[in-house]
Amino acid sequence: MNDVVAKLRELLGSDCITDPALADGYLSDWRGLLRGNAACVLRPRTTSLLSRSVRICQEAGVNVVPQGGNTGLVGGSTPDETGLQIVVSTGAMKKIRTVDPVDMSVVAEAGATIAELQSAAAEADALFPLSFASEGTATLGGALATNAGGISAVRYGSARDLLLGMEVVLPDGRIWNGLRTLRKDNTGYALKHLFAGSEGTLGIIAAAAMKLAPLPVGREVAFCAVETEDQVLDFWMKLRAAADGNVRAIEYLSGSCVELAKREGLRSPVEKADHYVLVELTSSRPEAGLKDMLEAFLADRLEDGTIVDAALAQSGEQQKQIWRLREDQTEVQKKAGRDFKHDVAVPVANVPELLRRSRADVEAGFPDVTVVPFGHVGDGNIHLNVVLPAALGAERAAEHGRQISQAIYDIVLSLGGTFSAEHGIGRAKVGLLESKRDPVELDLMRRIKSALDEDGSFNPGKIFR
Amino acid sequence: MNDVVAKLRELLGSDCITDPALADGYLSDWRGLLRGNAACVLRPRTTSLLSRSVRICQEAGVNVVPQGGNTGLVGGSTPDETGLQIVVSTGAMKKIRTVDPVDMSVVAEAGATIAELQSAAAEADALFPLSFASEGTATLGGALATNAGGISAVRYGSARDLLLGMEVVLPDGRIWNGLRTLRKDNTGYALKHLFAGSEGTLGIIAAAAMKLAPLPVGREVAFCAVETEDQVLDFWMKLRAAADGNVRAIEYLSGSCVELAKREGLRSPVEKADHYVLVELTSSRPEAGLKDMLEAFLADRLEDGTIVDAALAQSGEQQKQIWRLREDQTEVQKKAGRDFKHDVAVPVANVPELLRRSRADVEAGFPDVTVVPFGHVGDGNIHLNVVLPAALGAERAAEHGRQISQAIYDIVLSLGGTFSAEHGIGRAKVGLLESKRDPVELDLMRRIKSALDEDGSFNPGKIFR
Repeated sequence: MNDVVAKLRELLGSDCITDPALADGYLSDWRGLLRGNAACVLRPRTTSLLSRSVRICQEAGVNVVPQGGNTGLVGGSTPDETGLQIVVSTGAMKKIRTVDPVDMSVVAEAGATIAELQSAAAEADALFPLSFASEGTATLGGALATNAGGISAVRYGSARDLLLGMEVVLPDGRIWNGLRTLRKDNTGYALKHLFAGSEGTLGIIAAAAMKLAPLPVGREVAFCAVETEDQVLDFWMKLRAAADGNVRAIEYLSGSCVELAKREGLRSPVEKADHYVLVELTSSRPEAGLKDMLEAFLADRLEDGTIVDAALAQSGEQQKQIWRLREDQTEVQKKAGRDFKHDVAVPVANVPELLRRSRADVEAGFPDVTVVPFGHVGDGNIHLNVVLPAALGAERAAEHGRQISQAIYDIVLSLGGTFSAEHGIGRAKVGLLESKRDPVELDLMRRIKSALDEDGSFNPGKIFR
Repeated sequence: MNDVVAKLRELLGSDCITDPALADGYLSDWRGLLRGNAACVLRPRTTSLLSRSVRICQEAGVNVVPQGGNTGLVGGSTPDETGLQIVVSTGAMKKIRTVDPVDMSVVAEAGATIAELQSAAAEADALFPLSFASEGTATLGGALATNAGGISAVRYGSARDLLLGMEVVLPDGRIWNGLRTLRKDNTGYALKHLFAGSEGTLGIIAAAAMKLAPLPVGREVAFCAVETEDQVLDFWMKLRAAADGNVRAIEYLSGSCVELAKREGLRSPVEKADHYVLVELTSSRPEAGLKDMLEAFLADRLEDGTIVDAALAQSGEQQKQIWRLREDQTEVQKKAGRDFKHDVAVPVANVPELLRRSRADVEAGFPDVTVVPFGHVGDGNIHLNVVLPAALGAERAAEHGRQISQAIYDIVLSLGGTFSAEHGIGRAKVGLLESKRDPVELDLMRRIKSALDEDGSFNPGKIFR
């Protein structure tokens, strides 16, 4: 191993990190739940150096753990405990190669952050549509490797849907140059879609070409109080038809979520209810009349009883206040006790049933637990989180958490849903994938893994055991 | 082989076709350019029968040629001449299992036609967004296997973009049940995207779940005369920002295309020009004000000189007349002489250069040739067709055609484009794929093919030699 590290240091100089203090941040996950070790951490600055680094690892039979911004929530980029793996970060490959507002595309290296891409696009009077909580740290490569979703997926899709082309370093060090910026290209298998969402198990995304969208000039935000789960869905159905593609975000918050936020000093602009919906409309047409449209829509929904109260933000400041109720959930839930996260999705039509059954089942079995579901209702993607009392103790909480998770995943699967909507499998959900998915599907995935990573040297223990 | 056919007949009865008269339609391609042979043609009625049919073929080592509506343009579903292959049509699997306007999804078997899916969705007050010339015959399975594009891809995407889940019969007869209707599902590799566009070389799509969209209630169609290639692009850029997602179609027609159409008795509502653009806007909002918006937009473009003339259809009849100029191109080009088709795409920003260079190069080298490009300018996808004089004779025309094709593909590739935008590779473009694509990319595709179709028994000679 010393020999390999020496070769890598010769190639990369100080971008081959062996100093424990400097390597530290690359060895644990975002939430601090996992901690690994590594022979070294590599931060190559070009695709060519990345390729040569991987080749050195491959020739020595050393396993590689690809890493982007390291903001994932399932431990997909954390090395194991042996210290025999090498972390390869694309964080130093940050060049934004082209931003083309005519072609409506951006070509950037894997280490550019989502926020940097948003800024670069905005400077060219265009929108980089991907947007999620960790966008200041999360990178393009990581977002694609995990097919990140987020707030605006209901309008623009997940990372995969914005993907035009890719440059990938393969497990044997070869470079696949698929960096085309075409809207249509039916020339063989959709390799880019295979690497997207493969969580570093098939290759390292070195650069990508992504779609941009026209920059919105109008933006309206509203917050609504809703009495029942069915009305939440009904509201979305009506809005979907009325707003005709202008819905940038439609987020659900349970009454319990808003109560937790209030405890931390946030204020809700509507009366107390069991359910809430946050709506954001955007348009690139200055004269789109979004505000009139949303105002009329909300009046109609109050009239027909779909909602019981509504607040349409009258200023940018009010928009921010409404958004904080949603964006601060991770933080307020963490403060409320021991939080367990479940990133699930069901067919949109089954969201009410998911909310009802999970709350009923969990509260019946564990009376001291608070169910705090929120998320992307337009995509059927609910973060079905629960908070256990801090007083419960770590061990009992973990045991209760396991039982609750199992109950929730069973409900989700019985409703045609998935146990990972936008976070991926990583290390955390390997067991779930293995036990809950059709053996034929697992066999197909293993065949592909073997075909592209013959030695199994890329991110072992992730997705597959 | 007699033994295999006997077993298949025992399984499928008269759905195992051996009568030459009945088999005939399955043995040649849509355009009548290719003609093959087969031991029999199978039309199983269920996924289970399809699976058992494939298993019988696999056990006997017989090659299978999957077929949908057989409307492809690259010979992807035509068997070879040996008579040793078996055509497996999904045409008899026509059940539309569910249409869910709440979930905005449809689950249907592979043999349902695109038009049948459009009707089923419309009955549920929703839109099945895929739309192209052969939609009355083309099937869901075929559209997905070739990732069909078409007229409205600029708004709703190609077949792949509408795909939620899939049921697939694998080359060994196993069934992969991936028929989920989820908007987000990050649980391992994107198998559905691998089968989509794989042209029957990895499996047979038995059923699929697809996205629906809100049904448009407003529709406006306009036809514009434009002086230069750059203005065509400029027009699209301005419309893209102004219409904010309401553009259902933006089609380019060269002056030569419209002249050919006029010769066949069609009428253009605008003055003669070198270039034309057809626009269709749609909205699901009754009060979207599309007509006012388009009227104002066209007035502004006349004012700023982007276009020289415009006609906004004032009735459904006028809309139809405008669309005929575009939709009849295949027919009028066929009548004009010997037509050679090039389904190419370039980055949208390179469309003007593509149009200029291809016309200049082809007309310089072959003065008696008419270049008749048209197509989906918003996707950068131009059908860069040429018409050779009928008087040229078949042999010389074929030779000229080959030279012209080569010149066009060279221009396309030099502009970062692709030699197959929406038609696929099939049999017709195997040589192009092999010679023009990066060897690393080809190697990755071959590895996947071997991993999923170990015996190479599914659609041999298609995509790969």
